[in-house]
Amino acid sequence: MSEHSEAPVAPVAAYEPPYYAAVFTTVRTQEQSGYSETAACMEELVQDIPGYLGMDHAQTPGGLGITVGYFRDADALTEWRTNAEHRAAQQRGQAQWYESYTLHVAKVERSHGFTRARTPQSPAAD
Amino acid sequence: MSEHSEAPVAPVAAYEPPYYAAVFTTVRTQEQSGYSETAACMEELVQDIPGYLGMDHAQTPGGLGITVGYFRDADALTEWRTNAEHRAAQQRGQAQWYESYTLHVAKVERSHGFTRARTPQSPAAD
Repeated sequence: MSEHSEAPVAPVAAYEPPYYAAVFTTVRTQEQSGYSETAACMEELVQDIPGYLGMDHAQTPGGLGITVGYFRDADALTEWRTNAEHRAAQQRGQAQWYESYTLHVAKVERSHGFTRARTPQSPAAD
Repeated sequence: MSEHSEAPVAPVAAYEPPYYAAVFTTVRTQEQSGYSETAACMEELVQDIPGYLGMDHAQTPGGLGITVGYFRDADALTEWRTNAEHRAAQQRGQAQWYESYTLHVAKVERSHGFTRARTPQSPAAD
């Protein structure tokens, strides 16, 4: 998330389907105390879920946030959904941080990626 | 997108599954001339696709962008993917606007939403 650990920015790559994507779209309240600490904690915690593949996050300032978590299979997602610390964070999210959200859990059927080719060096003049 | 039409901010609601989500995650280049006009044009154009349900977009300034388009079925997505104006925009995106991107096309199996209840008025004192 915008407050999350600063890694080089790149989208999560396309995995070989099938895999799962959990698309979480949010509008946040004015009351964000504790949010960034909990978000960082969840980002650590999810790494321990077997079958966790990665996460993309984008946040329009003052607008919509979208987090997409990628998981190898439905079991991995179930383990994450029912994790006790994650459940506590979900409850606090409803009580405090989120004005509204939608969660879409979806099985990826196809995917592909694009990465710009490096600009080749100009050939040396003869 | 951040440059897109300004509507009241709310996530697209949960539809009755199954439906499709196309998750498009991007990192953009420095060369963004024409991007916002084309994005606005695509946002108009997609509304004409039968089975188009809605779109969520978030953009971290200088970071990741995520656009999620929702469609009733695979046919709707195919129609959008193969639309001539959309294809031209895709090609310009690869040539100019995107450093890297990933597209995940996924069938939504379950979804739910949350909207904060309005704070009730305090009862009048007797």
